[in-house]
Amino acid sequence: MADRRVHVGLIGLGRMGRFHAENLAGRIPSTELVRVVDADEGVARAFSERTSGTDWSTSYGDLLDDPGIEAVVIVTPTPYHADMIEAAAAAGKHVFCEKPISLDLERTRRATEAARTAGVKLQVGFHRRFDPDYRIARRKMAAGEVGSPYLFRTSSRDPRPPGFDFLEHSGGLFADFSLHDLDLARWLVGEIEEVTVVGAALSDPKFGELGELDNAVLALRFTCGALGVLDNSRVSGYGYECSSEIVGSLATLRVGSQEQIGPEVLTPGRSCRGFLSKDTERWAAAYAGEMEAFVLAVNSNQEPEVGGADDEAALALARAADRSYREGRTVRLEPEGQVGRNAR
Amino acid sequence: MADRRVHVGLIGLGRMGRFHAENLAGRIPSTELVRVVDADEGVARAFSERTSGTDWSTSYGDLLDDPGIEAVVIVTPTPYHADMIEAAAAAGKHVFCEKPISLDLERTRRATEAARTAGVKLQVGFHRRFDPDYRIARRKMAAGEVGSPYLFRTSSRDPRPPGFDFLEHSGGLFADFSLHDLDLARWLVGEIEEVTVVGAALSDPKFGELGELDNAVLALRFTCGALGVLDNSRVSGYGYECSSEIVGSLATLRVGSQEQIGPEVLTPGRSCRGFLSKDTERWAAAYAGEMEAFVLAVNSNQEPEVGGADDEAALALARAADRSYREGRTVRLEPEGQVGRNAR
Amino acid sequence: MADRRVHVGLIGLGRMGRFHAENLAGRIPSTELVRVVDADEGVARAFSERTSGTDWSTSYGDLLDDPGIEAVVIVTPTPYHADMIEAAAAAGKHVFCEKPISLDLERTRRATEAARTAGVKLQVGFHRRFDPDYRIARRKMAAGEVGSPYLFRTSSRDPRPPGFDFLEHSGGLFADFSLHDLDLARWLVGEIEEVTVVGAALSDPKFGELGELDNAVLALRFTCGALGVLDNSRVSGYGYECSSEIVGSLATLRVGSQEQIGPEVLTPGRSCRGFLSKDTERWAAAYAGEMEAFVLAVNSNQEPEVGGADDEAALALARAADRSYREGRTVRLEPEGQVGRNAR
Amino acid sequence: MADRRVHVGLIGLGRMGRFHAENLAGRIPSTELVRVVDADEGVARAFSERTSGTDWSTSYGDLLDDPGIEAVVIVTPTPYHADMIEAAAAAGKHVFCEKPISLDLERTRRATEAARTAGVKLQVGFHRRFDPDYRIARRKMAAGEVGSPYLFRTSSRDPRPPGFDFLEHSGGLFADFSLHDLDLARWLVGEIEEVTVVGAALSDPKFGELGELDNAVLALRFTCGALGVLDNSRVSGYGYECSSEIVGSLATLRVGSQEQIGPEVLTPGRSCRGFLSKDTERWAAAYAGEMEAFVLAVNSNQEPEVGGADDEAALALARAADRSYREGRTVRLEPEGQVGRNAR
Repeated sequence: MADRRVHVGLIGLGRMGRFHAENLAGRIPSTELVRVVDADEGVARAFSERTSGTDWSTSYGDLLDDPGIEAVVIVTPTPYHADMIEAAAAAGKHVFCEKPISLDLERTRRATEAARTAGVKLQVGFHRRFDPDYRIARRKMAAGEVGSPYLFRTSSRDPRPPGFDFLEHSGGLFADFSLHDLDLARWLVGEIEEVTVVGAALSDPKFGELGELDNAVLALRFTCGALGVLDNSRVSGYGYECSSEIVGSLATLRVGSQEQIGPEVLTPGRSCRGFLSKDTERWAAAYAGEMEAFVLAVNSNQEPEVGGADDEAALALARAADRSYREGRTVRLEPEGQVGRNAR
Repeated sequence: MADRRVHVGLIGLGRMGRFHAENLAGRIPSTELVRVVDADEGVARAFSERTSGTDWSTSYGDLLDDPGIEAVVIVTPTPYHADMIEAAAAAGKHVFCEKPISLDLERTRRATEAARTAGVKLQVGFHRRFDPDYRIARRKMAAGEVGSPYLFRTSSRDPRPPGFDFLEHSGGLFADFSLHDLDLARWLVGEIEEVTVVGAALSDPKFGELGELDNAVLALRFTCGALGVLDNSRVSGYGYECSSEIVGSLATLRVGSQEQIGPEVLTPGRSCRGFLSKDTERWAAAYAGEMEAFVLAVNSNQEPEVGGADDEAALALARAADRSYREGRTVRLEPEGQVGRNAR
Repeated sequence: MADRRVHVGLIGLGRMGRFHAENLAGRIPSTELVRVVDADEGVARAFSERTSGTDWSTSYGDLLDDPGIEAVVIVTPTPYHADMIEAAAAAGKHVFCEKPISLDLERTRRATEAARTAGVKLQVGFHRRFDPDYRIARRKMAAGEVGSPYLFRTSSRDPRPPGFDFLEHSGGLFADFSLHDLDLARWLVGEIEEVTVVGAALSDPKFGELGELDNAVLALRFTCGALGVLDNSRVSGYGYECSSEIVGSLATLRVGSQEQIGPEVLTPGRSCRGFLSKDTERWAAAYAGEMEAFVLAVNSNQEPEVGGADDEAALALARAADRSYREGRTVRLEPEGQVGRNAR
Repeated sequence: MADRRVHVGLIGLGRMGRFHAENLAGRIPSTELVRVVDADEGVARAFSERTSGTDWSTSYGDLLDDPGIEAVVIVTPTPYHADMIEAAAAAGKHVFCEKPISLDLERTRRATEAARTAGVKLQVGFHRRFDPDYRIARRKMAAGEVGSPYLFRTSSRDPRPPGFDFLEHSGGLFADFSLHDLDLARWLVGEIEEVTVVGAALSDPKFGELGELDNAVLALRFTCGALGVLDNSRVSGYGYECSSEIVGSLATLRVGSQEQIGPEVLTPGRSCRGFLSKDTERWAAAYAGEMEAFVLAVNSNQEPEVGGADDEAALALARAADRSYREGRTVRLEPEGQVGRNAR
């Protein structure tokens, strides 16, 4: 049954929700998007009309009650994630959920457990794991081409911050933004046992007023001994960035400078290029890839490549980062994922 | 009615036909692919099944008889193009046709005229005109940013030749392969009045036996005075290439080196990258863009950006190139597009 | 008298000493290298013969006694620097000295003071300040083109460590290696008030046995509020690296990826380039530039661009880095450059 | 005697002459520049003063009469070259001469023969053969890494034309400018048997008035079958360019895009870099390399890598290019290097 179309319902037609919904409706052959849900009736109806025929409603219950739907895609704000996962599990639906499941570690664990107990698949939206370039990098790591890893480095930057309304409830830079980098680090190099952070609010006094950061540097120590460093910014200005480097004893890998667009323009002594600067353009293949992987996991009854435990591990690291920032010291992760106080 | 979906039928499910059909079926919101035709019943049925529901048949007549179809997309071998355009025109269907309309200039002219008389749109598949990078280049030319153009340069190369079965009936390197470059040259810089060619068969003796070329250099003189040069190869080996340069008095534009894929791998003293090497990957946006433009022309009742007259002009240049190659001399295009013998 | 040739003597004909001596002898028009000194008679004589005529000896005293010599260039091991600076100052000679002046802050201060009291110029070998690319970057910073700086990032890496004999007396990674990055950071962005470090010994157990590191990440907080991050490696394998990034509110600057050498080689789906991998190749212009600047300072009786106080400031940061590494916590620099214990 | 310093005299202190003289005086260890000659007394004296001690005069005879001089470097205008070579040969001096020896093929041959008969070395200034990147490319060709060559392509461009005073006596675009490309083509791929040219005067009406070209495209056919194409411009505007490509059956080589200078500057959606735009910067290593090679040939009594016969061969191709341009047809080189009329 591996090539059967999986019937999917999606809840949450915000920016990312619409993006996923369009992929499910038009670009991924192995799925059929049969129903969309959004609290805003106009939004739900408009999407349905545009895709000529997708059912729509304003109630998540309608999705769960629909016997034709095997899997739900949850793209709502974070506070709804855990409850929605548990309700879907209770209804026997497989779940794809945007990260993080919750800002609370214990709540994350319970929702993950609910899916496991119900025997439904749960995939979390760490889309970078499905980017073609990063996948090749990981394959080279696994094949030993890099040798012993010495340093993992990633620059992740947004040109402009989201609105302060959003920031107020985002869970902070580490849980909302660094989470993707922390997952990437774990996935490419392995478990992390120490986090050391400095951060700052530099661009707008409102960041400081909210107790928020707009820039941070996270130094990591992996269990294998390698060091890591993430630089994160919500205000890079020039564009979106996600570039990584893995320095190893045999080779060094680099992924992901900006994709260029438009002709190179040469004038006396100077050469200029345009580059893509939206994250959805950078990750177009990855967003499609994660949905294909989810559907494949459902169809082939296999565990998704990235599940609730990965979300939990990344969140534990984000929590450690927050503590390191506040205490001005290295924070060591406890073996069970608990964050402890004792430094190296 | 500009955003109404145009109902389209497509004939010819070869490599390019399937590519166009998949675009029409899934990636272009303003069209609906309602019927596909291929002489091979299995091919037509398989495509229909894969897209769950597209009608199919083995007869072009079925397309033309279908009153629900407003436009046809012709992706058959060249010898069928002109007749099919005329039949579609007679049936009142708009036409998108792959280049060239015919290998015969007079036949090309008659088919173009048939569409004009019938009042249907006729767009020809010069897809490069819809590539985002080339479009920006053209906009900069039009805005005067380049100043007076001095040189237009394009390298177009296929890594491997098509089969010799195809080559035997391809119309030769200039009409089959250089045609795209000649159209690009006209579109970006303007009319061409002289062609001077050297060519060779270097890779496989069979090219010579067929009287075919696998490499050629075409030097051009534009009516505006600028020079041009195309280098064409069917056997570049390393990959697909289409890169251009416009050197002007104020600026120089460069379009289109290979798109890189995978991480950069650094080993002692050496840095390696993968790159995309298939033409369909290079032109994915352009192929979708030309279909969107066609549908827009139909919906808004405007002339397509690239029509039969453009195909005719490019073919006249290809004919001149062929004569230049055979006679070892510069060939001048007659004002009426007739190819004359008299050199400068 | 600004374009008079300055008569220079040099002591220490090791790898860097020979490099400086060849610059002074052949590539810098405004100097004349009149005498070289090395403890090894054979080395000194061989250099003299190769440059046809430079005087040589094995005694530093000969340099200081020579009334025709206005300036000395000190390229001996670090333990000799401070004494030699003081002796030169006493003899009324201007001094160019490789960094660091001493591994001891107080000793550094005294040697700097000796030069000041004697009224001789003292320039320290922070050559990166004379690299053309970094100089343009600094000019852009000064001109406000970057806006408010948010992040300064530098990757500095040596492909292979120096011998363990050297490492044992090197003063450690921070004072020996990171010092250049710390100076670059101060010069480009401004004073640094906090250092937070993680480090590791990964490549060879001998590093650990010596209490040495081969990899480190240094997070910085500048007085202006900006964050900084340095990643340092003695064992990067693929080659030498010194690349920097300054992310600001208006623009982002990038300096210094490897310089490519040799043709690009394209084979199916792959493109490879060679790159320069020796630090002396990377900094050829900078090494010449710092000598020209030194001579200019002497000739025009102006303070060198980089003096003893800069060496002292960088060393204080290196000391703070070392403490941060050992204590697993952020270390704050005291306003007077004293390293304090109290974290933010 | 291979590492003895060769005593050299130079005549002609124009732009290139000064450049060579500075290399000989300061950057090339195996030579000693003992005398410079320029018709302008002030120029000769100023150079001597700047290099503290080089003898100078205004008479070439002084050079030839000086028994301490073994080799002369001729950097005078072309009309003087052949006579000066013959006089140097008669005086038993080795000769390095800028290209071309003469604009007349027969005169070139006689001067070359004079050197041969006198048993002195004669090297011609095709400096590109000594560029590190092009040398690696040639090595790869020789090692068979490229396989059968299919296409040799070179873009050579000057941002601005030399003065019209110079152009009037330059010998025309092909002999003055394309000569370097034609030599490069022969050196990298092999003998050329056909030349086909189109050219234009586009930038300034004065070019046309002088019967000169400012842009040209030269298509070549090599004896090995490969095609070649050169695009030449005296008015590229954006900067100096010399980039080449060799497309072969096994690999494709690319040499020589502009060298970047200064930091990359990223602003929203745009990335800009500076690049070096003077030919002397592009070829600094090559100019030094050709002098080192000349001195080595003298010291080791071996034939220079590039001699009078290479100059003659390139000039014959330039003559063929000129005829092709004027006659609008392919011109075939006679086996003896005579230019014939009969096309392929």
